[in-house]
Amino acid sequence: MTKAEPAPLRIGMVGYAFMGAAHSHAWRTAHRFFDLPLTPQLTAVAGRNAAAVEEAAARMGWASTETDWRALIERDDIDLIDICSPGNTHAEIAVAALRAGKHVLCEKPLANTVAEAEEMAAAAQEAARNGVFAMCGYSYRRTPALALAKRMVDDGRLGKIRQVRAQYLQDWLSDENAPLTWRLDREVSGSGALGDIGAHIIDAAQFVTGQQITGVSALLETFTRRRPVGGDFVGLGGHGAAGEDQPMGDVSVDDAAIFTARFDGGPIGVFEATRAALGRKNAMRLEVNGSQGSLAFDFEDMNFLQFYDGTDRPGEQGFHRIMVTEPEHPYVGNWWPTGHGLGYEHGFTHQAADLVAALAAGTQPAPSFADALQVQRVLAAVEESAADDSRWTPVDANAHSAAGAALKTTAEEIR
Amino acid sequence: MTKAEPAPLRIGMVGYAFMGAAHSHAWRTAHRFFDLPLTPQLTAVAGRNAAAVEEAAARMGWASTETDWRALIERDDIDLIDICSPGNTHAEIAVAALRAGKHVLCEKPLANTVAEAEEMAAAAQEAARNGVFAMCGYSYRRTPALALAKRMVDDGRLGKIRQVRAQYLQDWLSDENAPLTWRLDREVSGSGALGDIGAHIIDAAQFVTGQQITGVSALLETFTRRRPVGGDFVGLGGHGAAGEDQPMGDVSVDDAAIFTARFDGGPIGVFEATRAALGRKNAMRLEVNGSQGSLAFDFEDMNFLQFYDGTDRPGEQGFHRIMVTEPEHPYVGNWWPTGHGLGYEHGFTHQAADLVAALAAGTQPAPSFADALQVQRVLAAVEESAADDSRWTPVDANAHSAAGAALKTTAEEIR
Amino acid sequence: MTKAEPAPLRIGMVGYAFMGAAHSHAWRTAHRFFDLPLTPQLTAVAGRNAAAVEEAAARMGWASTETDWRALIERDDIDLIDICSPGNTHAEIAVAALRAGKHVLCEKPLANTVAEAEEMAAAAQEAARNGVFAMCGYSYRRTPALALAKRMVDDGRLGKIRQVRAQYLQDWLSDENAPLTWRLDREVSGSGALGDIGAHIIDAAQFVTGQQITGVSALLETFTRRRPVGGDFVGLGGHGAAGEDQPMGDVSVDDAAIFTARFDGGPIGVFEATRAALGRKNAMRLEVNGSQGSLAFDFEDMNFLQFYDGTDRPGEQGFHRIMVTEPEHPYVGNWWPTGHGLGYEHGFTHQAADLVAALAAGTQPAPSFADALQVQRVLAAVEESAADDSRWTPVDANAHSAAGAALKTTAEEIR
Amino acid sequence: MTKAEPAPLRIGMVGYAFMGAAHSHAWRTAHRFFDLPLTPQLTAVAGRNAAAVEEAAARMGWASTETDWRALIERDDIDLIDICSPGNTHAEIAVAALRAGKHVLCEKPLANTVAEAEEMAAAAQEAARNGVFAMCGYSYRRTPALALAKRMVDDGRLGKIRQVRAQYLQDWLSDENAPLTWRLDREVSGSGALGDIGAHIIDAAQFVTGQQITGVSALLETFTRRRPVGGDFVGLGGHGAAGEDQPMGDVSVDDAAIFTARFDGGPIGVFEATRAALGRKNAMRLEVNGSQGSLAFDFEDMNFLQFYDGTDRPGEQGFHRIMVTEPEHPYVGNWWPTGHGLGYEHGFTHQAADLVAALAAGTQPAPSFADALQVQRVLAAVEESAADDSRWTPVDANAHSAAGAALKTTAEEIR
Repeated sequence: MTKAEPAPLRIGMVGYAFMGAAHSHAWRTAHRFFDLPLTPQLTAVAGRNAAAVEEAAARMGWASTETDWRALIERDDIDLIDICSPGNTHAEIAVAALRAGKHVLCEKPLANTVAEAEEMAAAAQEAARNGVFAMCGYSYRRTPALALAKRMVDDGRLGKIRQVRAQYLQDWLSDENAPLTWRLDREVSGSGALGDIGAHIIDAAQFVTGQQITGVSALLETFTRRRPVGGDFVGLGGHGAAGEDQPMGDVSVDDAAIFTARFDGGPIGVFEATRAALGRKNAMRLEVNGSQGSLAFDFEDMNFLQFYDGTDRPGEQGFHRIMVTEPEHPYVGNWWPTGHGLGYEHGFTHQAADLVAALAAGTQPAPSFADALQVQRVLAAVEESAADDSRWTPVDANAHSAAGAALKTTAEEIR
Repeated sequence: MTKAEPAPLRIGMVGYAFMGAAHSHAWRTAHRFFDLPLTPQLTAVAGRNAAAVEEAAARMGWASTETDWRALIERDDIDLIDICSPGNTHAEIAVAALRAGKHVLCEKPLANTVAEAEEMAAAAQEAARNGVFAMCGYSYRRTPALALAKRMVDDGRLGKIRQVRAQYLQDWLSDENAPLTWRLDREVSGSGALGDIGAHIIDAAQFVTGQQITGVSALLETFTRRRPVGGDFVGLGGHGAAGEDQPMGDVSVDDAAIFTARFDGGPIGVFEATRAALGRKNAMRLEVNGSQGSLAFDFEDMNFLQFYDGTDRPGEQGFHRIMVTEPEHPYVGNWWPTGHGLGYEHGFTHQAADLVAALAAGTQPAPSFADALQVQRVLAAVEESAADDSRWTPVDANAHSAAGAALKTTAEEIR
Repeated sequence: MTKAEPAPLRIGMVGYAFMGAAHSHAWRTAHRFFDLPLTPQLTAVAGRNAAAVEEAAARMGWASTETDWRALIERDDIDLIDICSPGNTHAEIAVAALRAGKHVLCEKPLANTVAEAEEMAAAAQEAARNGVFAMCGYSYRRTPALALAKRMVDDGRLGKIRQVRAQYLQDWLSDENAPLTWRLDREVSGSGALGDIGAHIIDAAQFVTGQQITGVSALLETFTRRRPVGGDFVGLGGHGAAGEDQPMGDVSVDDAAIFTARFDGGPIGVFEATRAALGRKNAMRLEVNGSQGSLAFDFEDMNFLQFYDGTDRPGEQGFHRIMVTEPEHPYVGNWWPTGHGLGYEHGFTHQAADLVAALAAGTQPAPSFADALQVQRVLAAVEESAADDSRWTPVDANAHSAAGAALKTTAEEIR
Repeated sequence: MTKAEPAPLRIGMVGYAFMGAAHSHAWRTAHRFFDLPLTPQLTAVAGRNAAAVEEAAARMGWASTETDWRALIERDDIDLIDICSPGNTHAEIAVAALRAGKHVLCEKPLANTVAEAEEMAAAAQEAARNGVFAMCGYSYRRTPALALAKRMVDDGRLGKIRQVRAQYLQDWLSDENAPLTWRLDREVSGSGALGDIGAHIIDAAQFVTGQQITGVSALLETFTRRRPVGGDFVGLGGHGAAGEDQPMGDVSVDDAAIFTARFDGGPIGVFEATRAALGRKNAMRLEVNGSQGSLAFDFEDMNFLQFYDGTDRPGEQGFHRIMVTEPEHPYVGNWWPTGHGLGYEHGFTHQAADLVAALAAGTQPAPSFADALQVQRVLAAVEESAADDSRWTPVDANAHSAAGAALKTTAEEIR
C-alpha cells in the first residue's frame, strides 16, 4: 500500500441497546466508505450486566467489556467515550469523561434538565481549550437530504425564510396495551415524545434554517395514562398485550407535544411530536418556506428532498422531487451509484466520519454541547409554557445562568 | 315524461366574483346530475355596477339583474338569497332576507365579528320557526373525500379520536409585490388567512370529528406589511408587480395564523392557515388520528382519502389511498364512472343539491348559522389569544351573550 | 351589454348515455367560462326509445327529441351533429351528416374498422372543402396537464424524444361476475380495452410527441371468457353479481392489449391497455423521456404534470410536480384560482370551446378524422400483429388504399 | 459467553469494484445483525492489479490478496468463492471453483450466453450432489418489500394472477457524452440494459409470481451509437464530458429493451429495461395484478410495498402503502425499530445471511444456478425475438440441450 495506515481512534461505548447497535455499526463501517484520518477501533463496551455486555460485545464487535463506565474512563487505551445510555446518565458520564481528557460523543437529548445540560456544556467548553471535544448525536443532521437542505438554505436558494413546520409522528404508543418501559418513566427519560423525538425536529429546524428558536407556546398531552408493567416489549415497534392480571403503572411523560415558535431571524414555526399518530411510523418531517423557495422532507422517504424553486420558469414550477443519491449530494458519493438509496443507520456512519475528521483536525465537531444545550432550553421552555396555560415563553429566559451566557459566546468563537 | 316537472326554487344572488361564478355553476348544474325535488332557477343577480352586473348575468346565466341587494329581497319571484359578497356585508343582507321570509345561503366566513354572527344566528333561529332556513357555505364539507371521512368517523372506523392536524397552505402572498386587494383590508375581510382559509379547516375539523373546539393558543403573523395599491390583480393566483412609483398601502390582516386547540371529546389539534407557503397552491389538509384508524386528506389531491386501518392484518397495514370515485362514496354515484375525478366546483354543486333537498323537506340544512357561529367564535378566540401572548383562550368564554347560549340549545333541537 | 350576443351553434346529439351526459354538460357550460364566438344551443337529442330520450332530454337540458338520428340530420335548425352512440354507428351517421352539410363531432374511437374510418375521413376531407368540419372526440387532449405537456414538447423542453411509455389501467372487469355488456361485444364495440381505452393512449402519445406510430408488435388477452348476461350493470364502475341460474355469454373482445411501438421521429414506445388491473381505477398514464427532459402524467392525478428538467442545477434535479392550475397553463385561466383543481368533464368543455372557436374561424379543428384514422390504423395493426404471433406490423402497411394515401396529404394541407 | 463461537465461513472474492464493495459490506455485517450458524471471514480478495487489489483489501477489510483468481481456488483456507467480476468471467471461475469443492456465490447475470449458463448450472448440479452449493446474486429478492410481496402471493392474497408489469428505468446513459465503459462493450458485458437491469426484473417477476416466463416478443434499441472513449467515468452515476478531440467508439449493446411476455400460470407481462429514461434513477418497478389483490413496488421507494386488497370493505379500498419496516416483515426484525428504513446494501446482507444459513444446513440456496439459467434463457429469447422482427419466441425452445432439460428436473428435486 502506498499510504501509511491511519492511526487508531479507540472508542469506549457506554450502553448497547438500540443506540449502541447503531453506533457500533457506524464505528465498524465509517472507514470502509470514507477516507478517514483516524481508524475507529471498537476497544471496549460498558454495561452493568456482565453476561449481557459480553454477549453484546461479541455481536457488535467490541474487543473488550467493562461493567462500570468509570472503568472505561480510567483506561489509557481509550480516546473517546460514546454515551448511548439513557438521558439521566449523560451528564455524569460526559463530565467525567471530558475531565479525564476523553473526547465525548453523547446521544441526544443532551440531558434531562437544562441544569445538567449547562454543566455538560461548561465542561465541554473547558475541555475544548485543551483540544478535547464533545459532540451531541443529533444524527438526523447527517441524513443526506437534510444536509442538502441546510446547504441550499445557506446558499440562499430559499430567499428570506418565513415559515417552518416540523412534525415527528410515530404510532407505537397508539396501542393502549403497549407496556410501560423506561421511555415512559420521567425519571429516566426526562420527558416523552417531547425529548425523545421533539428534540430531533427542534435540532433539525435550527440546523437547516441556521436560526434559533426564541420563544414558544405549547401544549402537552398524555392520552394513555396507565399501562401494563413488565411486558416483554422490545424496541419501539413491538405490539403490547395486557393480560387480565397484568399489573398497571402510571405513565409520567407526554404522548404528544405541540407548540408554536418564533425564530431569531423572523420565521414562525409549528412543531408537533407524537407517539400516538396511528399509521405514521417515523414521519420526521420538516418544511421550510422562504420568499424564493421551499423545502420539504419526510424521514419515511429519507432519500428524497422536495424543493420548490420560485425562480423556475412560470408554468413549470412545482416541487422538485430530488432523489438525494447523486455524487453532488452530501455524503452520497462515498456509497453507491445514483438511485441506490441509503437507510437509517447511514446517518450514524456519517456522524462518525465527520466526528473523526474534526478530531483529527483539532476542530469543534457540530452539533456541540452548546448547540445541544440550546435544544434543551427549547424543550424546557415548551414544558414551562405547557404548564402555564400555553403562555408565550421566551427561550432565552431560561438562560440566565452566567455559565450559560458565557458559554454561548465562547462556543461561537470555537466554532 | 312520466313524472311531473318539479317546482322551481328561484334564486337571487348577491355578488358575482369568484364565489358568484362558483355558485352560478352549481345552480345551473345541480339538477342535471341529481334528482332534485325543486329545480333551481337563476332568477336575478345583484351588484352595484349596472354594466358589470349585466355582463355577469349574461355570462353566468341569470335572467335579470338588480343594482341594490334590497331590491332582490323585495321581489316576490325570489325564494332564496345567495350571498356571495364580502364578509362585511353578510349580516345586514342575511338578516334582512330572513326577516323577509327568504331562505339564505351565505358564503363563509359567516361574518366579520362574533356579534354579527350572533345576530345572524338569532335571525336564522327565528326564521326556522317559520320554515325559512339559512345555511352557511362551507362547501368543502361536500368534497366527497371529506364527506366520506365524516361517515367513517361516524361509523366508528377510527375508534377514539386523539389528534387532529389541519393545514390550509397557499402561496399567493409569497410575492412581496402582490397587490393590496380587499382581502388584505381588515375592514372588508375581517381577517386574513385566518378567516379566509383558516375558517375552512376549523369547520372541516369540527365536521369530520363531530366535535367542537373548546380552546386555543394562537400566533398571528404578517410577513409583508406594505403592498402596492391599485394593481390589476385578478383572482388569487395572479402575480403582482410593483413599479417604482407604485403607491403603497398597509396590510391590515394576518398572512399566517397558527394555533393549538382542544376539542370537547378529548383530542388535541394543531392548525395552520397561511397564504405565504411558497409552492403550496391549495393544500387544505386534514389528518385525524384515532385509536383504531387514521384519516388524511389534502385538497390538492381532492379525489383521494388516505385511511389507515389499524385492524388490517399485521404486515399489511398502511394508508389505503382510496380514490373516492366509487358508487359507494358520497355524491359520486351521480357523476362519472369510477376513477373519473371531480373538481373544485363540485363541492358547490353538492351543496346546492343538499340545500334544495333540505328546503323541499322543510328541514334545517347543515352547516346552519349556529354551526357557522361556532367557527366564528373559534376565529375570535384565536385573535384574542394571539393578542394576549398566546394565552390559552376558551372558545365558550366568547359565548357569554344570552342570545348565543340560547341559540346553541335551540339550534341543536332544530337539527 | 356592450357587445352583441354571439350567434347560436345549434347542436343535435345522437346517444345520451355516459358520453351523452358528458357532452351535454360541455355544451351547457363552455360559454359560461370561455369567451365563445358562437353560443352552443342544446337543440335536439336523438335516441330510439322515445320515453327514455325524453327523460334524458329533460335531465340534460335538450330542447327537443328525435327517435331516429336521420331526423336530426334533416332538421334545418341544427348546425352540428354530436355522435355519442356506440362505435358501430359512427360511420353511417357521420358520413350522412357531413354530406348534409352538418359539422360533426364524433366520439372516439372513430369507427370499428379501418375501412369505415377511411370512408369517414374521406367524407370529412370532402366536406372541409365546403367549410363543413369534422372532429373526433379524443377529449383527454384537452386535459390541461396533457395540453401543457404537448406545449412543452413543442417548445423543445425535452430535447430529442427517445422513449414513450403509455398505460391505461382500469379494473372494472377484474370481477369475473361483472356482466356482459355491449362493451364486451365485438359487433358493437369493435374491440375491448384496445379500442376503448388503448385508443386514448395512442392518441395522447401521438399528440404529445407530435409523432406518429409506424409499427407495432402486440399481444391481446381475454382473462374472463364467459360472463353473466342481463345483469343490471350500469356504467363502468358497478359490481357484477352472477346468480346460480344466470345465463352466461361469450366475451368477444380483449381484456388487455399490450404492445411495443416505434414512432416516426425515432422513439420507441411501450403501450398497455387493460380493464383487469385490480386497484387501478382510471390510470391513463403517459411518460415521455427526452435527451433534456422528461414528462409524466397519470389521469388519476389529472391536475398534475411531472417534469424532469435535465437543465436544472446539478443537485437540484428531480421531477417537478407541477400543479396545472395556474393562469399560465392551458385552459386553466378561465376557471378558478390557482390550486383549485378541475375534474374529468372539463376536458369535454375545453373540447367544446375549441371546436366552437374553430368552426367560427372556419378552420379545421383537431383531432381531425384523418388524425383519428391514423389511430384506427394503429389499432388495426395491433390486432393484426397479435393475430400473427406478435410479428412486427407496420402501421402504414394498412394504408394501401388510394383514399387513405390521398387523404393523408390533403389532411395535412388542411391543418 | 454462553454459546460457542460459530465456525467460520472463509470467503474468497473475485473483483472489488461496485459489486465487490457491496459484497464486502455484507460479509462484514451479516453476523452483526443476524444469528448465523457460521461467521463469514473476509479471507482473500483477488484482482489482476496488485497495488489496486491491496488498496481495496485494506479499504474493504480483506485479510489477504491474490492477483489470479485461480490462486484463490487453490487455497485450502477458503470455503466459498464470491464472483464479482464482469459477466464474461463468470463461467470459467464458477465451474473451476465448484469442481474444486468451493461453494460459489456468483453475481448476476449468471453468464453472457445460455451455453455458459448451462455449463455452470450443470456444474452446480454436479457439485450439489457432494454438498457444494452455488447461488446467483439476484439480491433484489432480499429487499424486504419484494420478499413480502412473494410471501403474500404465496399466501394467496392476490388470487389468480393475471398481469405483470415490470420496469427498470435508469438514466445514466441519457447523456450522449457519457463515456464508453465496459458495460457498453458486448464482449465483456454480454448485453446492455437487457442483461444489466432487465435480468433483475425478469428474476423478480418470476420470483414474486412463482411462475416462469414461457415466451416473449421483444424490441431492442440503442439511442446513442458512438460514445467518447477513455473518459474518467467512475460508477454509474457520473456525468460524461467529451472534448473536441475525444476519440469515439462504437456502443455494441442496447440502451433499452422492451418486451411482452407470457407466464406458465397464465399471466401476461410487459417488461422494460432502459438506461436512458431521464429522471429515473433506479426505478426497478414491479406490479402484479390478481383477481383478488394487486401489488406494486418501486425500488426508488424501496421501504414500501403497495397492496390493493380487493376484499377490503367497499368504499375503503385503495392501495395500502405498507412501510415494510415492521417486525412482521421479512428480515426487518433484525434491524431497527419500525419506520427506520433500510438501504440498497441491505439486500446483499440478507443474501449473505440466507446463503450462510443454507450452507450450514446443507440445503440449496435460492436462486440456484438453475433458476439463473432460466433468466438467461429469457434474455436469450428476448435477443432472438428482437433480431427476428419481434416474432413470438418461446423460452423453452432455447432449452433443447439434454443438459438443460435434465437440469431442470434435478434442480427442482434439489430445491
